[in-house]
Amino acid sequence: MSSQTVEQAMLALGENARRAARQMMSASGAAKVRALTAMADAIADSRDALKAANRQDMDAARETGLTPALLDRLTLSDRTLDLMAEGLRQVAALPDPVGSIGPTTIRPNGMRVAQMRVPLGVIGIIYESRPNVTIDAAALCLKSGNAAILRGGSEALRSNLALAAIVRQGLDAAGLPAHAVQVVDTPDRAAVGTLITMTEHVDVIVPRGGKSLIQRISAEARVPVIKHLDGNCHVYIDADADLEKAHAIAFNAKTYRYGVCGSMETLLVHAAVADTVLPRLADALVRHGVELRGCPRTRELVPAARPAGDTDWAEEYLGPILAIRVVDTLDDAMDHIGRWGSGHTDAIVTENLSAARRFQREVDSSSVYVNLPTVFADGYEYGLGSEIGISTNRLHARGPVGLEGLTTYKWVLSGEGQLRG
Amino acid sequence: MSSQTVEQAMLALGENARRAARQMMSASGAAKVRALTAMADAIADSRDALKAANRQDMDAARETGLTPALLDRLTLSDRTLDLMAEGLRQVAALPDPVGSIGPTTIRPNGMRVAQMRVPLGVIGIIYESRPNVTIDAAALCLKSGNAAILRGGSEALRSNLALAAIVRQGLDAAGLPAHAVQVVDTPDRAAVGTLITMTEHVDVIVPRGGKSLIQRISAEARVPVIKHLDGNCHVYIDADADLEKAHAIAFNAKTYRYGVCGSMETLLVHAAVADTVLPRLADALVRHGVELRGCPRTRELVPAARPAGDTDWAEEYLGPILAIRVVDTLDDAMDHIGRWGSGHTDAIVTENLSAARRFQREVDSSSVYVNLPTVFADGYEYGLGSEIGISTNRLHARGPVGLEGLTTYKWVLSGEGQLRG
Repeated sequence: MSSQTVEQAMLALGENARRAARQMMSASGAAKVRALTAMADAIADSRDALKAANRQDMDAARETGLTPALLDRLTLSDRTLDLMAEGLRQVAALPDPVGSIGPTTIRPNGMRVAQMRVPLGVIGIIYESRPNVTIDAAALCLKSGNAAILRGGSEALRSNLALAAIVRQGLDAAGLPAHAVQVVDTPDRAAVGTLITMTEHVDVIVPRGGKSLIQRISAEARVPVIKHLDGNCHVYIDADADLEKAHAIAFNAKTYRYGVCGSMETLLVHAAVADTVLPRLADALVRHGVELRGCPRTRELVPAARPAGDTDWAEEYLGPILAIRVVDTLDDAMDHIGRWGSGHTDAIVTENLSAARRFQREVDSSSVYVNLPTVFADGYEYGLGSEIGISTNRLHARGPVGLEGLTTYKWVLSGEGQLRG
Repeated sequence: MSSQTVEQAMLALGENARRAARQMMSASGAAKVRALTAMADAIADSRDALKAANRQDMDAARETGLTPALLDRLTLSDRTLDLMAEGLRQVAALPDPVGSIGPTTIRPNGMRVAQMRVPLGVIGIIYESRPNVTIDAAALCLKSGNAAILRGGSEALRSNLALAAIVRQGLDAAGLPAHAVQVVDTPDRAAVGTLITMTEHVDVIVPRGGKSLIQRISAEARVPVIKHLDGNCHVYIDADADLEKAHAIAFNAKTYRYGVCGSMETLLVHAAVADTVLPRLADALVRHGVELRGCPRTRELVPAARPAGDTDWAEEYLGPILAIRVVDTLDDAMDHIGRWGSGHTDAIVTENLSAARRFQREVDSSSVYVNLPTVFADGYEYGLGSEIGISTNRLHARGPVGLEGLTTYKWVLSGEGQLRG
């Protein structure tokens, strides 16, 4: 296809999505549950067709020399298909956010003012070659009453188109518009360029993937982007910390899983407790295979640590490496986080109430914890029931984004003929 | 200044604002009240200096032939100065939105999850040559804990710089950072170009002014914009309307003030009541000086109406003109609003509960009313206590934006050393 044809095809997709979004806005909760459940059933019924389509993607990907890790993410096994169906049923069971009305105020003239939750409209999701995201994203957009345009990595195109057929079966079964979920059917990169700039047809873009993908999309988009960049997370062990808790929290924050965005990348320790807490913690981490990099004062207490510099304070390792810095005050800890942090998730370990309050009030991150490891940064852990991603934006949704982050509100006012002026 | 110098000056302003925003984030409510009150006092004390600066602007503007309406908006009279001081005291008295914590959930592992309101950060306000906006915008940004960069129309530059000195006195008196409110001191248009693209230093842009200003800024901005485009508002008189209420609501919605964005531009009337309601209403409107434009069925009942076409359905007159259309069903009314409306404010007049419910649920506008005139679209009327503007965005703030629209939230979690996994 020429890039002009791609643009026209995307605009047509956008118009369809906008029309479908208008209908989805007033779709009943029951119809959405029916659609999601029918999709789960259809996955079970179409196991062979889905695996056959996926095998074609896998064969092509092997030929182009995709890495084993990426091949693994591309695979639709029986287990991934089971998880996808289970995920659909879980989303179906979540409370429907649409149409709920918040607290009502009565104005002096008797009119009633409230806010009603409503869908955002059309959501564009851009992701890598992970076909499970197709179903996951479709389910969250559908449950929140939005229309979705899904653009996965080109290596997963056949799998994604097979999954799109499953989604359509679910929509049909529930009498919902077929264009409520559309999968972009061209691998042409120009499609993304149109998707992220057609402000008439798309209300928000959610990129799911690595930092470079998200940076590129954010730089070029005209549609608002719910984006998640770095998670350079800190744990600060205060002078008044319970040192047993501090040890356990810091160890868990680093070792729970190296690759998650809530993983601790820098540990800050108050000078008053550094000599008690650091040697034992360093020992446990090193035995667990974690490489340590420290400031000069850290290295006096932990000879195994290599010297840490500014690049270490700035880096999101996403691996078995930890930077450590000894600080003299709570303010120094907060200054370090303000300067080097990414505003994702930061924690203090302390038994001192005013230190906890100040840290939670003054650290400007989307999540700020007291006496908890940063690895709790996850929509499920927060009780959101689902998660489309973690936002490091300041406007609209911040931190873990669940169904509510895919909705907005409108004002609903009622009266009995009150007039103005 | 060369445009490169302007860019450097704006970047310096941005860095100052970012630093000030960090300090403002934890400023106490008391300090903010002190600053706002000191500004109100300083206006009273500096009346002569302010009027002298304003006279220079007025003289220059007269020479360049500014229209009387624009000269009027540029004037700082004793009365405008009184209103500005009064406005500052009113904002000072509003509840402080920053630091409040919403409902707390306890998770199965005992950790507590809540959201805390926090400032957005740095807000850029771009407005026309109305010096009162300088004080109004400074007050709202300050009260909500943000740093502000203010860029008013060049005709008001001397007035705005004199007002900036007043603001600085207030900040000094309260021990708040001097850069918490900065007024751009160059009339060079390149300053706006830098302001709306320096995403590192500015978190949101609020343009206040005419549609062309807002369109231009939205098209070029890289920073998110809280924007307000058209207010093409509708009143729909349902078959089950109380016709006395309908008459009063429609008359008020058109005639309260022609120039406000909540003013009704198109009246939709159900065919079953059109012959009862339209002739009398049309008569009252015509006698009030309103020009009527109608669909063919309207013109059978209202011979005075000129023919209405698509341009009338699309237009925001902001003047003494009203388009009228007779429709056969509630759905036809909602389709008309969906196609021609601007998503600002739309109202139904009905005594029928299911018609009211459907209209409020299905009309996708930022405000949807039952039995109220659209001219209530105003933050003060909603009980917000103040208003920076009315947003027609879908993300973040929607409809009238008060102090809360200038804040965001962060997640605050507390535990006793719970671990993950």
